[in-house]
This record gives sequence, C-alpha cells and structure tokens, in this order.
Amino acid sequence: MSWSVLSTWKMSLEGCRIAAQQLAKGATAADALVAGIENVEDNPKFCSVGFGGLPARDGHVYLDGGFMDGDTLRFGAVGSIEGFRSPIRIARSLSAYKFNNFLVGQGAEAYAKAHGFEARDNRTSKSQARWEAEKDHAQDLVSYDGHDTVCFLTRDDAGTSCAGVSTSGLFLKEPGRVGDSPVIGSGFYADSEIGSAAATGVGEEIMKGALSHTAVLYMKAGFTAQQAAERAVLELDAALTRRNGSCNAISLIAMDRDGKFGVGTNIVFPFVYASDTQEPTLYLAQRDGMRTVYEAVTDIDSVVQD
Amino acid sequence: MSWSVLSTWKMSLEGCRIAAQQLAKGATAADALVAGIENVEDNPKFCSVGFGGLPARDGHVYLDGGFMDGDTLRFGAVGSIEGFRSPIRIARSLSAYKFNNFLVGQGAEAYAKAHGFEARDNRTSKSQARWEAEKDHAQDLVSYDGHDTVCFLTRDDAGTSCAGVSTSGLFLKEPGRVGDSPVIGSGFYADSEIGSAAATGVGEEIMKGALSHTAVLYMKAGFTAQQAAERAVLELDAALTRRNGSCNAISLIAMDRDGKFGVGTNIVFPFVYASDTQEPTLYLAQRDGMRTVYEAVTDIDSVVQD
Repeated sequence: MSWSVLSTWKMSLEGCRIAAQQLAKGATAADALVAGIENVEDNPKFCSVGFGGLPARDGHVYLDGGFMDGDTLRFGAVGSIEGFRSPIRIARSLSAYKFNNFLVGQGAEAYAKAHGFEARDNRTSKSQARWEAEKDHAQDLVSYDGHDTVCFLTRDDAGTSCAGVSTSGLFLKEPGRVGDSPVIGSGFYADSEIGSAAATGVGEEIMKGALSHTAVLYMKAGFTAQQAAERAVLELDAALTRRNGSCNAISLIAMDRDGKFGVGTNIVFPFVYASDTQEPTLYLAQRDGMRTVYEAVTDIDSVVQD
Repeated sequence: MSWSVLSTWKMSLEGCRIAAQQLAKGATAADALVAGIENVEDNPKFCSVGFGGLPARDGHVYLDGGFMDGDTLRFGAVGSIEGFRSPIRIARSLSAYKFNNFLVGQGAEAYAKAHGFEARDNRTSKSQARWEAEKDHAQDLVSYDGHDTVCFLTRDDAGTSCAGVSTSGLFLKEPGRVGDSPVIGSGFYADSEIGSAAATGVGEEIMKGALSHTAVLYMKAGFTAQQAAERAVLELDAALTRRNGSCNAISLIAMDRDGKFGVGTNIVFPFVYASDTQEPTLYLAQRDGMRTVYEAVTDIDSVVQD
C-alpha cells in the first residue's frame, strides 16, 4: 500500500494526520484531501483559513478554495465566497461538472445554498477584534498579513494525485479580491501522470508566474519534485526582484507521481509530510542561495503557530 | 520602427486596424491593445463581448477581462462584472497596484464605480431576445455558444509585449461563472523577454491546461511561436480526449518577443495579424493532424461573422 500527503504550514499537522489515516484505510486521494483541509477550515485558531479567517477591508470574511483531480484534470474552485463552512468541499463538488467549474461571489453562494452546503458565519470575536484594531491601516501593511493558505497534495494507492487549497486570503484585502488559491495553475495543479503542486504566500506574486503549473511542467521535463519546486519559486523570485525591485513571500510544495515531495520558498516555511513509510512529520524549509533546504523539526513547539 | 498586433476572430479586424494605426504612431503596446479591444467591446453586433454580449442563465450580462504587461509581469483582471462598458480598461487599471489585482463580482463593480469607469447596461434587444428563446434549454447546448473571446497580443517598438482579453463568457452560464479569460496563465500570459499568448474557446477546457502559460514556456524552451501554439493546444486536446473522451473547442494565439506569430486550434478559427511590414490580414486556421495550418483570407465575406 503506497500513499503520500504533503501540506503547508504547521496548522496542517492535525489535518495531515487525518488524511494519512484515511489513506492508510484505502480512502481516495480526493476524500483524504478534503478531510485534511476541512480540519484546518474548522479550527478558529488558524487566522488565515475558514472559521476565524481574517476579514477583508469591509469586515467581511470572504473565502477562496480550489480542487483538482490529477486523473481527469478536472477542477473546481470558488472565489470570494461568504457564509459557508467549507470552500474545499464546494470546490470539489464543482469539479464534477463539465462547465461552470469556477464560481465567484454571489453566484458561488447561490450554488452552495442550492446544493445544501453547510452555512457558517466565519467571523469570530478574535478575528473581528483584529479587524477593528487594524482596519484603518491597510496601507501600512507592507506585504499584508494572513496569507497562509492551507494546501494539501495527496496521492493514493491507485496512483491518483489531487491538489486542494483553502484560504481567507490577504487580511484587509479589497472586497472581491481573488488571490492565487482558486486560480488553477497558480494556486494548485495536479496531473497524476506527472505530479502535483500548490502554492502559498502573496497571491499577486504567485499568479505572475503561474507557479504551480510551472513546477508541474518542470517535473514533466524531468526534474525531481525538489528541483522543480525550488526552481519554480526561486526563478520567479529572481525575475520579480530584477524587474520590479522586490518579490514578496512565496512558497510551494510539490509531489511527483510516485509520492516523493519537494519544497521551494523564499522565506522560512513550515510544511508537513506523511506516507505509508513515514509518520506525519513537520519540516522547516528555508532558502539557501538558489536552493531550498529543509530539516525535520524535533521540537514542534519551537515553530511559531501560523 | 517595429511593432505587431495579433487578435482573435473576424470581429477583431477593425480593432486590429485601430491598434496597428496607434502602434505605427508610437503608441505603447498597452494603449494600442486597450484601444483595439474596446472597439470590439463597444460593437453590439458581436454577441460574445461587451455591449450586446449574451446573458448568463439569469438574463444578466456578466463580463470577464484580463490584462498583462510583459515587462513587469504585472496583471489585472475582473471576473463576473456587470454594468460597465470596458472590462479591459478596468483590468488594465488594476495592473498598476501591488495587491488586489484580480477582483470579481460586486467588489469589482465597487472598484469600477469608485474609480469612475463608465457604466453601461450591456443588454441589447437582440441579446435579450436570444436569451428569452433559449433560456430554458441550457442543458441541450452541447458546448454552449458564444465563447468567442476577443484576445489581443501587441508588441511595440520598445519591445514591450502585452496580452489582453475580454468576453461575456459562455451563453447561459451559471451566474458567477468565471472562465479562462480573467485567469492569468489560462486566458492570457505575456513576458516581453519570451513572448505572449492568449486563448479562446471553452474556458473550462483551457484552464485544465493553463494553456497560455504552457505556450509561453514552450517558447522559453526554444520552440517558435507556431510550434509553441500548436503544441500547447493539440497536446491538451489529446490529453483530454484520452482521459475524458472528448475535448471541446480551444484556440490559442501566440507571439514571440520579435513579433512573429503562431496559432493553434482544434476547430476552424479566424484570426488577424498586422505589423510594421504587413497590413491587417484575416487568416483562417485549422487543425491538420498534430499541426495547425492557416492561410490568408482573400474574400473576407466568405468568413462567417463571429
């Protein structure tokens, strides 16, 4: 029995355990992925995803999510949706259709309501208090806060790879702003015959390079998941620094068709990996020149909670 | 003085002339592109773009648009926006910001209103009559109609390449549906150091392959614009046919950094090209095995209006 799970940030540790348990019992890559992400969406401690996610400039919590099935290349995505529990569940359900796979705003909300997805006010007293305290200072935020998207890449025993993401986006974003997360090719991409990738960081930078798709094409060209991930991230960082003077935070996870993982980042970036031969393990990655290096974390409490 | 314009569908012929005239007078790639696309957005005869665009299932006309500057890789996009004249103008204006470049739905409308973009009810008696006649038959439409996105690729004398697109999307789409057009990497992509590409057809298929970004990466790998365009389109067609049994209509235009053009399609597809050494010329492209062939049209009236 061969399977793997790769996920972003320390907040995904428990979700990774859940996805790993499901895969070990024979769950599909898609089912395990949704279970893992939903665990993060439901936890109000995590301020950048789902319940308790940080609000937009207008105080509302708008969520983004995306899902892709690497066997069929079918995908589903929701952008700027308010008032529902699980963007990843809604995104996955949209991947079943031939048309209308990417829905935004009120149209996405009407779809979710019509199809019985669970409603939820995702504001918490904590997220509202932070919004109250900082709402007049959006211009002072250098790179915005709260851009920690939860991304999961899963591969099941049948060899199917899936990618999925969920986020509340940039804290104090403009209403209607959509980041890379629901944008196929930028926030996520999966092809079971090649591999999968998903991104987190400042979406406006990630989209300039269609980052997840770049990493998958690099794997198609023969690079390992690690080479593909670090190359995709650090080439984009270099291109934007050269052309625009700077590049904001970008990180990417990648998994090849055999379940081996790779990571690229231009910051200090925690991620989690589990497989049929490895317990869920928290790693810390960082840039080293044009490479990304990482090591397993022995003292989990030493890593700051996202 | 060296410049080029490449655009999709017969409807872009007049816009291509306008963009070519501007480039010949020294306009930037971005200004010429916006002028060319706006000509198509303003013409109520064209039922898939701007004024007179075909409605969604609910009778409303929601528009999508995207713009990218190949020098900086900055981009702007609007998805599912109602009640404004020119999505391409709004998209371009969004490319000036560091964050919040992709806005959808009511948030995009609030931005357009706050920044003084011209309002317009894009419904016409003709588009409403067609909606009335067919609104109860969305399920019968095999591939939907009205997916003819206007795409422009421009290159100016300074060597700057831009990509831009504008569309009303699939006729009878679900409210809130976003196609490939405002999705960077799928609907459009431009890098002045490599080349540019833009796509038209069924967005849900185009997005499965992040088609425009694929073509630009193929040019980066050394393929000509023609090789890159036909390879991107026909590989995606083959992948989707093999995995899902079929691939809907997809077409792509590409331009290299020197202004030479390429085209890929799995249908019969009209496009227009002009340069400092060539008057605006309508071509008809079609698939020939794993190649795309095209020839200049001598009798313009023989090509069906989009």
